[in-house]
Amino acid sequence: MMSNEERRARMRRAMESQKLDALIVRLPENVLLLSGHWPMIGAAFLIFPLEGKATCIVPACYRQETLASLEDCEAEFYPFGGKNDPPMLAVVSKLIREKASNSWKRIGFEGDFETTSPSWNAAEGMGPAATTQALVREIFHGKELVDITKLIVNERVRKTPYEVNRLASVSEISCFGLAAFEAAVRVGISGVELAAIVEKEIMIKGTGYRDSVRVRAFAQVTTGALETAEAHRPNIISTARPMQDGEFAVLELGIVADGYWGDRTRVRIAGTARDEQLRIYETVREAQEAATNAIRPGARARDVDAAARSVIEDAGYGQEFPHITGHGLGFGYHEPWPILGPHSEDVLEEGMLTSVEPGIYTASLGGVRIEDDVVVTKDGPLVLGPFRKICN
Amino acid sequence: MMSNEERRARMRRAMESQKLDALIVRLPENVLLLSGHWPMIGAAFLIFPLEGKATCIVPACYRQETLASLEDCEAEFYPFGGKNDPPMLAVVSKLIREKASNSWKRIGFEGDFETTSPSWNAAEGMGPAATTQALVREIFHGKELVDITKLIVNERVRKTPYEVNRLASVSEISCFGLAAFEAAVRVGISGVELAAIVEKEIMIKGTGYRDSVRVRAFAQVTTGALETAEAHRPNIISTARPMQDGEFAVLELGIVADGYWGDRTRVRIAGTARDEQLRIYETVREAQEAATNAIRPGARARDVDAAARSVIEDAGYGQEFPHITGHGLGFGYHEPWPILGPHSEDVLEEGMLTSVEPGIYTASLGGVRIEDDVVVTKDGPLVLGPFRKICN
Repeated sequence: MMSNEERRARMRRAMESQKLDALIVRLPENVLLLSGHWPMIGAAFLIFPLEGKATCIVPACYRQETLASLEDCEAEFYPFGGKNDPPMLAVVSKLIREKASNSWKRIGFEGDFETTSPSWNAAEGMGPAATTQALVREIFHGKELVDITKLIVNERVRKTPYEVNRLASVSEISCFGLAAFEAAVRVGISGVELAAIVEKEIMIKGTGYRDSVRVRAFAQVTTGALETAEAHRPNIISTARPMQDGEFAVLELGIVADGYWGDRTRVRIAGTARDEQLRIYETVREAQEAATNAIRPGARARDVDAAARSVIEDAGYGQEFPHITGHGLGFGYHEPWPILGPHSEDVLEEGMLTSVEPGIYTASLGGVRIEDDVVVTKDGPLVLGPFRKICN
Repeated sequence: MMSNEERRARMRRAMESQKLDALIVRLPENVLLLSGHWPMIGAAFLIFPLEGKATCIVPACYRQETLASLEDCEAEFYPFGGKNDPPMLAVVSKLIREKASNSWKRIGFEGDFETTSPSWNAAEGMGPAATTQALVREIFHGKELVDITKLIVNERVRKTPYEVNRLASVSEISCFGLAAFEAAVRVGISGVELAAIVEKEIMIKGTGYRDSVRVRAFAQVTTGALETAEAHRPNIISTARPMQDGEFAVLELGIVADGYWGDRTRVRIAGTARDEQLRIYETVREAQEAATNAIRPGARARDVDAAARSVIEDAGYGQEFPHITGHGLGFGYHEPWPILGPHSEDVLEEGMLTSVEPGIYTASLGGVRIEDDVVVTKDGPLVLGPFRKICN
């Protein structure tokens, strides 16, 4: 099995440049980033020192999963979930104290993640708030505490080859859902049924695919015409309304496999397509291709956006493409950059991962969006888990 | 339609006793609590003043859902998700300033929610961290800021009749999944397939049930024998391993309908049951019944735990019941109290909602747990969404 050594080396270089002696992280996405272990819940803590081995502090009941995935990291286990267990943070505090070095002067903590990715147990989030911060302040009394949110976010933007490989897996898994969607769209089926079918297919076929252990999908399917005021919405509600002849179904799909995320969109027409629908679809497909082809190290993100936007404007649908062309992702469904938008100052670099997702939304005909996740490589764009683009 | 006026009146009494002039809340679960609107993502803010109407500040693309669910609350909409939109927090800040009264002296904010419930978009969490807190501090410069985490948590413990009604809906919806599980368990099926079937059934049949709009389930199914060290785990990974004859399948199920949560567990044997399996199952069933029957206002939580535990101890399985008997829930999969455990100091009060979920876990035979959600009423226990308990 490959390992993500490059990530840890890079993070240590970043720590060195900021004179950080150790990081204390708790968000599942960041524990995964630096240890290889995707926590079941937010009850895992990671001590990541500049020098010496990292230590992951994990509920004892997850010993097996932890040991199977930890890389270059020691493990400490604490009792959790039992009727006589001591308070979690008291035990964790003791373990951090034992592992901490007195020579550490500057310690980093996750102070400002306002957007977070769920752990495996997506029904419940756990993460650092005032209590965890007070704990860190108490343990490292007299030391300098540094909010490392920006540091981590910035490091996460450029994926390592190991991470690209894991992200390719999740995009390949998403294809099981895209295929199920393609096959299921028909007159009479509802958005809610389509979403449920896609999620089920991904969970069943994705589990075990290229050694993936924990796979889950979050599907949203909008069908039919749209209210103009809501012609594009980042999240939509799948409804129980049966599809009518000639309607679009748009599948917005978030997928996670062992902590690595994908973001796809496909569109399908139930029954008979109208000519303008096909023209819209073809325009979006061409726009997506144009943006994808513009992706390379050194390209300005706004130029990639413009590549898609000009195709859509030339076809006369400029007003109907109200959103940006793409966004970073990988350790979450969305990451703050790169942003492929008309006002973006971002410049693409090797290893960045971005969605490419132009769309056209009309009140009368419904919406169309096509979305894939694309890695910036030195040779140009690498589409993860390629999947056909046909709407009928 | 009923309304949750009692909740808002109660919260205002609590605010009055703590001399709070207004609350600024952002976590979806708390926006729901005080406004009736369950945010699509964590981009909604609620200004909840002691005097005068509350204001919910919501992305404009969710206007329709917001207006359909807001109770006794004004709405302000801001642009979101568009290619030319100004930064979200700048706009939100301006709107809060406009609504804030200069006479406010003490303002509450959500400073310490370490455990959170996902919004409708469970693939991504959004909530207050350093940035939101800095925003609130800036807007209310010179005023006193108060962390209201405990205040909110404490108020949430006692459900209003309106909330009990909504929570009954979600438990009734969970029964679609329990029935599908019961029908699907057989030799050869895997835990991952069972989990996917249950989630699909709930999403399809739950949407629209008693006006429910957004319904999602999070299922975990463990099958077969257990490692002793992991005889009980709060979260388990469903695997692709086919069930063998005579194995238990345990379904742990989190369900959400429009922001209200349920937590159920059922068990089923594939193929031929062994006598000891049936004895274990019957013991857990009796223990659950004993604990449920002990629930009433004024009962000590530890006595409810003891009611279940003594049944299991008497049957000789005391060592195999390592966890507590139950926990609060409602606006989340878990809430911090009441705790039905041997060391709990909690006393049950009318309107509390608790899971009742004793279990027996043996390495050789596998685990058994039966779980329902029970409201403390003045007449005793009210089981939400009752569902049969049979294992073969």
